[in-house]
Amino acid sequence: MKNIELGNITPTVVASFDGLPDARQRELVQCLVGHIHQFAKDVRLTHEEWRAALGFLHRVGDISTDSRSEFSLLSDVTGLSSLVDVLASDPSATPGSVLGPFHTVGSPWMDNPVNLIAANEGRPVLLRGRVCNTDGEPLPQATLDFWQNAADGLYWQQDPNQPTDNLRCQLRMDAQGGFEIATIRPVPYQIPLDGPVWADLVGPAGLSGWRPAHFHLVVSAPGHHSLVTELFDAEDPYLESDAVFGVRAALVGRYAQQTDPAACARHGLPGPDCLVMSIDLRLAPVAPTP
Amino acid sequence: MKNIELGNITPTVVASFDGLPDARQRELVQCLVGHIHQFAKDVRLTHEEWRAALGFLHRVGDISTDSRSEFSLLSDVTGLSSLVDVLASDPSATPGSVLGPFHTVGSPWMDNPVNLIAANEGRPVLLRGRVCNTDGEPLPQATLDFWQNAADGLYWQQDPNQPTDNLRCQLRMDAQGGFEIATIRPVPYQIPLDGPVWADLVGPAGLSGWRPAHFHLVVSAPGHHSLVTELFDAEDPYLESDAVFGVRAALVGRYAQQTDPAACARHGLPGPDCLVMSIDLRLAPVAPTP
Repeated sequence: MKNIELGNITPTVVASFDGLPDARQRELVQCLVGHIHQFAKDVRLTHEEWRAALGFLHRVGDISTDSRSEFSLLSDVTGLSSLVDVLASDPSATPGSVLGPFHTVGSPWMDNPVNLIAANEGRPVLLRGRVCNTDGEPLPQATLDFWQNAADGLYWQQDPNQPTDNLRCQLRMDAQGGFEIATIRPVPYQIPLDGPVWADLVGPAGLSGWRPAHFHLVVSAPGHHSLVTELFDAEDPYLESDAVFGVRAALVGRYAQQTDPAACARHGLPGPDCLVMSIDLRLAPVAPTP
Repeated sequence: MKNIELGNITPTVVASFDGLPDARQRELVQCLVGHIHQFAKDVRLTHEEWRAALGFLHRVGDISTDSRSEFSLLSDVTGLSSLVDVLASDPSATPGSVLGPFHTVGSPWMDNPVNLIAANEGRPVLLRGRVCNTDGEPLPQATLDFWQNAADGLYWQQDPNQPTDNLRCQLRMDAQGGFEIATIRPVPYQIPLDGPVWADLVGPAGLSGWRPAHFHLVVSAPGHHSLVTELFDAEDPYLESDAVFGVRAALVGRYAQQTDPAACARHGLPGPDCLVMSIDLRLAPVAPTP
């Protein structure tokens, strides 16, 4: 029989996955098994701690739904989401930032330019920009998946007073690769306080759990790497202490007044008070197949 | 602002947990963050892979219930459960082995000796033994939490034809630290095939997913480390390839015929065909507080 002991357990488990036919899955599984085993050996993980960890994962699963991923939040507050963003970022493209737990697949397609303000309270703003490649050439075939929170700090999934899909949409770029979204200025918010990620990890660590205000974007274009990112507000008090490590210098924009009165008027936004944030989003090309 | 990039993300995240007041939790969290980050860097984890991993964790959570832990099964097939057992094992005590996904807290207390056969089909056997300390002295104050599968290979949680808590009990030892359980011979079984651990990991790896037949035991006694272990059958065909890496030489017992006809008769078991497995379970003392 196989007499499993400390000296042979890790290579035995790693070898048990030699049969995974997908070479990349095999690499991921075997590397992760090695790291998790090394963690358990480094700290001499006990049964009580192992059971507590399983209980924590169960609670993370229990509170997760199709429109709320506590697993994603766990990945966010431990910097894994941001690390994946950083690893994927091409230095010549706009850097990525965290997807966050409130993305949903299948937001409504709307015409560009779009006005999402509807019945939302908050300061009206215009977010405008252009999607281009790393040479600065526009990508009119690009699409954009956009979402943000409302004036009360909540995303629609968290707030029964908001209509479904409030302040989110998908858009196609115009012929110049441009987009315009009339919306409200997003506000800072705390990560959810009703789940185990807050109760067992972020709260006990004495962290505030606040995120600086931001827009969420997923930008896609044929032949280019999709960009999952966020745009921040230079005047936000939480830029220094983002709970999910998402801030990058290149993603911080500054609102300016009345840079384009015609655009404000086009959306029925008040002229002198209209704030505009402008940003170009640069996508990296997919390397050609050799 | 904090401009998070590859060179500073891991120390930034680790430092963010400096405020955890429990030193051990701080050590666990910071060490695990370091290993998970190093894994992501080693393999250059992509967004697609990260999303697939989150989707997998969601499926693991979705199929888990109070009486079925797919997280525990995931820990089992990746050897983490066994590793924790091995790390906890005192060389002078009986080695630990995996808890498995079918343990439930609060099995019914029964009188020792006990006969669990009831309406179960299968080969009647007598499991008998003694709980003692590492000096071989009996521990009459010990208790035992016992569970096993039925003749169809299923635990009661998996099988609507079995009564609640079929083939499981908690027992107090007798004055000599002894116990006797009349039961049926457990049979080999496959890990659950209806969950993501099989569908996405064990099945694709070409593994059989079979576990050799075994009894499950949790043995506890005041002043001693609890022992979570399993007892295997020396004649089992799957001792070489246990899906969860639980086999240790010291946990393999051999059934013998009629070693104690009086004991067989006491439980109404058929004399000549009565199989008996005898085992002493040794618990390690908790180190005295200095």
